[in-house]
Amino acid sequence: MSKSSPKKTTLDPFGTTVVEDYERLYEEFGIQPFKPLLMQVPDPYVSMRRGVIFGHRDFAPILHAMKTHEEYAVMSGIKPTGEFHLGTLTTAREVIYFQQQGATAFYGIADVEAYEDNKIPFERSEKYAVGNVADLLALGFDPRRGCIYRQSREERVKDLAIIFGRNVTLATMKAIYGERHMGLYISALIQAGDILLPQLEDFGGPKPTVVPVGVDQDPHLRLTRDLASKFRRKYRFVLPSSTYHKLIKCLDGSPKMSKRNPMSYFTFQETPKSIKKKISNAFTGGRPTAQEQRKLGGIPEICPVYDMYMFHFFKEDKQVAQLYRDCRSGRILCGEDKQRLIEIVLSFVKDHRRKRRQNIDKAREILEVE
Amino acid sequence: MSKSSPKKTTLDPFGTTVVEDYERLYEEFGIQPFKPLLMQVPDPYVSMRRGVIFGHRDFAPILHAMKTHEEYAVMSGIKPTGEFHLGTLTTAREVIYFQQQGATAFYGIADVEAYEDNKIPFERSEKYAVGNVADLLALGFDPRRGCIYRQSREERVKDLAIIFGRNVTLATMKAIYGERHMGLYISALIQAGDILLPQLEDFGGPKPTVVPVGVDQDPHLRLTRDLASKFRRKYRFVLPSSTYHKLIKCLDGSPKMSKRNPMSYFTFQETPKSIKKKISNAFTGGRPTAQEQRKLGGIPEICPVYDMYMFHFFKEDKQVAQLYRDCRSGRILCGEDKQRLIEIVLSFVKDHRRKRRQNIDKAREILEVE
Repeated sequence: MSKSSPKKTTLDPFGTTVVEDYERLYEEFGIQPFKPLLMQVPDPYVSMRRGVIFGHRDFAPILHAMKTHEEYAVMSGIKPTGEFHLGTLTTAREVIYFQQQGATAFYGIADVEAYEDNKIPFERSEKYAVGNVADLLALGFDPRRGCIYRQSREERVKDLAIIFGRNVTLATMKAIYGERHMGLYISALIQAGDILLPQLEDFGGPKPTVVPVGVDQDPHLRLTRDLASKFRRKYRFVLPSSTYHKLIKCLDGSPKMSKRNPMSYFTFQETPKSIKKKISNAFTGGRPTAQEQRKLGGIPEICPVYDMYMFHFFKEDKQVAQLYRDCRSGRILCGEDKQRLIEIVLSFVKDHRRKRRQNIDKAREILEVE
Repeated sequence: MSKSSPKKTTLDPFGTTVVEDYERLYEEFGIQPFKPLLMQVPDPYVSMRRGVIFGHRDFAPILHAMKTHEEYAVMSGIKPTGEFHLGTLTTAREVIYFQQQGATAFYGIADVEAYEDNKIPFERSEKYAVGNVADLLALGFDPRRGCIYRQSREERVKDLAIIFGRNVTLATMKAIYGERHMGLYISALIQAGDILLPQLEDFGGPKPTVVPVGVDQDPHLRLTRDLASKFRRKYRFVLPSSTYHKLIKCLDGSPKMSKRNPMSYFTFQETPKSIKKKISNAFTGGRPTAQEQRKLGGIPEICPVYDMYMFHFFKEDKQVAQLYRDCRSGRILCGEDKQRLIEIVLSFVKDHRRKRRQNIDKAREILEVE
């Protein structure tokens, strides 16, 4: 991706965010680079070490809480518009990481957003929600030390949205989200409610809260930090912190994963055959011919297959480094690289689905679904 | 009030509505005159007979239900920003009238609007709400055949607002309410939820619903009728009907009752001394001298004292007609007219407060206030 591109980045949580140059976000949006903090994190998460988590806002209070074992929370969630895939996996694993590090964990099912943004009625998103929560549990989320809820059923979140509305001008909403319909604005205020929920008295009052999200969600953080500040006197809110991960590349090289484009991603509920086919046909950073690739090497920086190893499927950092070198030098070709990935992915998916099935009833119970 | 005034009327539920010429509303806003329907109403309410209720939207389905004794609902409410006064009395009595005629009655405490529009926190509006509900019960509202609730506690109303948001553009909100902060827009959607609440399955499903309100509330009706139409397929909503009453004139001749101007109105919780003083000092349609008034007669059309008799304090229509003639002809002077009114009002207030005290505990129980 050329650095010379003059196109301005738009971070749009409701639309298509294509980040061509993550470095530029530091300047454009005031997102801080995560790398300088890495050494201070007691037990840094794999995505932190590999630069997948590349930025943050105000991470210092979280770092302090991690070091001193003081109370803090992690808050993120999922829009229940479909089954788990590699994108939602990224956020879920980050939440679980912080929970395992000692944070009280909140995972919101953004079914109001699914309705307002994607027209998915609550009856339909409920089905996805049950599956999504079973996925989360299968990945290791501990519900005894956390709170999983649906926006549509969590009155405290809706009530915060109503209370916040008082101090939000139309100009603010337009500046952050552009001109959108009322439902999307309400949904954004509800997201602010999600993020500040862990700080209500019912959950032990004000505390540092980290929100690990894809960088496209940053507008919600900006709105929420502004509201936390405006309502500080009433609720004694601590301004929420955030970490930003890069968005995993689409399998087919397209700019954003989309249901309209089923070759751009796979879900964990697809058949092994379908997953295998999609990875086999994936776009890569390879060259037109094997000969050229042996000579020039591949380009891991633009390669979704490389991304999959780096984001999720190599346990050891040194494996990633080795693959980078092997690709760059032309020692490994895309075919064999994909073959190995398919085996790892199918093995993961098989194991994950087994655990997921074991957690479906628990998920229903948590969401109070009949 | 001169008919030649070219000023366009603005109906603003959140601001100051000064209606100089009710006739003009028929043309400007598509409000229908109520008078042609009067003969058809089985047992017309005093405000209908006297032209206080001057307009409506789509009253035919209500008329039909009244005649055939089919199921229908009446829905209105109060913004809990203070104690009952002659303005809130008008609406409350209309609701009770329709309830006595057979409607299932809904009375919403608009505490979300009190917060969004008047910055009154819920803890404070709760106190007013208890008093307001005790007033309503004292006036004859039967809670066994009705539903009294607070917006902030009625999840179905908030959920309707969230669902409606999906189909409301910013342009629609601006066209109806002007450019306002997010909270007021949310409050408007919640009002739409109030108005359509009686038609949810929990309350027996779709039915004609009449909303008796001051004409300044018409924007909410326009928004709600639009939404009822948009969500007809999902909820089978019947478009709500409305009746519009004139706004009772301010005691001091100012354009709108306001807390900043305590001489413009009195509450039923004021001392008899204070009420007496305010009526004694009231603006009237009288002439500068008794001599002139004997000669020219007074102008009841601009007189808040006449309004009080007509809206509330004369039981018989013929008393109103008699007063009109006596005032016009100069047979009665403002002093004696006020003296008689003070006696009637103080007697009413004394009796009302006794009943109100008897209903305070019931009001707490209904609102689930400790």
